Amino acid sequence: MFGRIALLGFGLIGGSIARAAKAQGLAGEIVTTARSEKSRQRVRELNVVDRVTENNIEAVKGADLVILCIPVGDCGPVAKEIAPHLKPGAITSDVGSVKGSVVREMAPHLPAGVHFVPAHPVAGTEHSGPDSGFAELFVNRWCILTPPAGTNPAAVEKLHTFWTAIGAKVEVMTPDHHDLVLAITSHLPHLIAYTIVGTADELEQVTSSEVMQFSASGFRDFTRIAASDPTMWRDVFLANKEAVLEMLGTFNEDLAKLTRAIRRGDGEALFEHFTRTRAIRRGIIQIGQDSAAPDFGRPHPSLPPVPKPYSGE
Amino acid sequence: MFGRIALLGFGLIGGSIARAAKAQGLAGEIVTTARSEKSRQRVRELNVVDRVTENNIEAVKGADLVILCIPVGDCGPVAKEIAPHLKPGAITSDVGSVKGSVVREMAPHLPAGVHFVPAHPVAGTEHSGPDSGFAELFVNRWCILTPPAGTNPAAVEKLHTFWTAIGAKVEVMTPDHHDLVLAITSHLPHLIAYTIVGTADELEQVTSSEVMQFSASGFRDFTRIAASDPTMWRDVFLANKEAVLEMLGTFNEDLAKLTRAIRRGDGEALFEHFTRTRAIRRGIIQIGQDSAAPDFGRPHPSLPPVPKPYSGE
Repeated sequence: MFGRIALLGFGLIGGSIARAAKAQGLAGEIVTTARSEKSRQRVRELNVVDRVTENNIEAVKGADLVILCIPVGDCGPVAKEIAPHLKPGAITSDVGSVKGSVVREMAPHLPAGVHFVPAHPVAGTEHSGPDSGFAELFVNRWCILTPPAGTNPAAVEKLHTFWTAIGAKVEVMTPDHHDLVLAITSHLPHLIAYTIVGTADELEQVTSSEVMQFSASGFRDFTRIAASDPTMWRDVFLANKEAVLEMLGTFNEDLAKLTRAIRRGDGEALFEHFTRTRAIRRGIIQIGQDSAAPDFGRPHPSLPPVPKPYSGE
Repeated sequence: MFGRIALLGFGLIGGSIARAAKAQGLAGEIVTTARSEKSRQRVRELNVVDRVTENNIEAVKGADLVILCIPVGDCGPVAKEIAPHLKPGAITSDVGSVKGSVVREMAPHLPAGVHFVPAHPVAGTEHSGPDSGFAELFVNRWCILTPPAGTNPAAVEKLHTFWTAIGAKVEVMTPDHHDLVLAITSHLPHLIAYTIVGTADELEQVTSSEVMQFSASGFRDFTRIAASDPTMWRDVFLANKEAVLEMLGTFNEDLAKLTRAIRRGDGEALFEHFTRTRAIRRGIIQIGQDSAAPDFGRPHPSLPPVPKPYSGE
C-alpha cells in the first residue's frame, strides 16, 4: 500500500501502528524514530520496523506516509522541522487526541504537494512506551479523520483504506466537532479520574493503603485511566482547553443537582437518574464498543480449598 | 459450619453467597427469599438453594446464620419483622455498603441472645438479579465486619471463618470509619460516574450515539459502574449522606485546582498531578486488587483479513 511509512514516535500508538502495518503487509519499509538510545535499542530488539533513528528528518526522507505519533504539543515544532524534507505527494498525518490545535499548528508549515490528513485513532490502553503496543489495538475501534477543506480526496481515501486495513472503522468530521466529542468521551473522564485519584491519595481520614485495599468497590476503575501517560495528557488539556472547560461546566451543574438531591434526601430524583444511565451502557455494548462480561471481564480466581467440615455436622 | 443459613434476598450478593456456601459445603441447608414469583421460579431453576420463599419470617425460623442481602434502606424494617422469629444464638448479619445507618436501624430490634455482626463484602459487578451471582465473587476481596461493642467474640470469629471459607479476607473496623473509607473508594466514584454518564447523555453539541461510538477513549469505563442497581445506590447515598458530602467537598476543591491549571495553561501543575496518580494504580495491582493487564484485560479481536497487495509493490 505504501512504499515506505515513517512513524515519528514508537509509543503505544506508533508501536501499535507499526506492528499492525507489518502484520498486514502494508508497507515496503517501516521507519520509526525514538528519542532515547534506550528506546531505540528496545525498538531494534522488538524487530518490528526496518529502521529506527533519532532523527526526524532522516526518518521522513522518501516516505510515502508520515505519521506523527507524539504528544500533541510537539506536533507544530516537528511539522516545521520535517516540512522541507517531505517527499512531494506524501501523506502527512498524526494521531493526536486534539485536532483543532494540531491542524492550526501543523498546517502552516506543510508545503503544497504534501497531503495533510489529520487523524485520531480512538483507541488506547493506560500503558505507554515501546513495549506497550500491539497489532490488534485498533480493531473495531474508530479512527476519526479531520482533513482541512480542499485536501486531495485520493489522499483521504488512501489513509482511510490504511486504517481500515489495520482493523479500524473510519469517520470524517471537522476538527472543532472532533474536539467537542472527545472532550466529553475522553478528556473530561480523564480529568475526573485524575482528580478523584489525587483526592483519595491525599485524604486525612482515610489512608492510601485503605484506599488501595478496598478499591474493588469502584475506585480501581478510575485508577486505570489516571495511570495514562502524563505528557500526553498535559498536552491534551492545554490544547483542548475551551471544549474541556465547556464540558466541565455542564458536568459541574449536573453534579450540583445530584448533590442537592443527596442533601435533601430526594430518593426519587436519585433513582430516576441512576435508572437513566443504565441505557447508555447497554447501547455501548450493543454497538460492540465494550464487553458485556461483568466487571470488564476481569479474572476471578477459584475458591480456596474446602474448609474442614464443622464437627457438629 | 452452619446447620441452616437464611439469605434474605437472592441478588448479586445473596446469590453469590449461596453459590459459594454450597460449593464449599458450609451449610446443612440454605434457605433464601425472593420477592417476585418470577425470581422465586428462577431461583428454583438455578438449583443452588434448598428452599426459596416469599416470607422473611418463614426463612429465618431455625436458621443459625441469617444474612440480609437487600438494599440498606430495607434493613431496619426487615430486622423489625424477623426479630421475634430468630433462633436464640443465631448470628444475624447483612451485606450493606453503609454500616452506620444499618447498625442504628437494625440493632434496636434484635433480641438479646442473637449475635449481630454487620458485614460488608467489598466486591461486586454492575449486574444484578438472581442470575448475576457466582461462587468466586468474594475470592481475594475484603469483607469488613463492624460488630458493635460487646458483641460475642465467638460469633464474630465464626462469621470471620465463614467469609474466609468463601475466599474473602476479613477486616474489622468501626461503622463510622467504614463509612468514610467506602465514601471515597466506592460511593463518590459511583456518584461521579452516574453524573458524567448523565451529562454525556444530555448534551446538545454531541449526540448520544457519538458518545457511545467513541466511548472507548475513556468514557465507557464510567458507564460500567453507572449501570449498577439503582435501588441499591439510591439507598447508599441516602444512608451515607454526610460522609459522601464530605468527600465530595474535597473532590470539588481538587477539581477546581486542576480546572484553574487548565484555564491558566499551567502545564507543570498538570504534569505533576498526572505523574503522582500513577503510583496508586501500581499499588493496587501490587496488592492484587486489580489486574495488571492493559485495559482491565478487555478482549481484542484479531486483525481483519490481509488486504490485497497494492499493485505498485
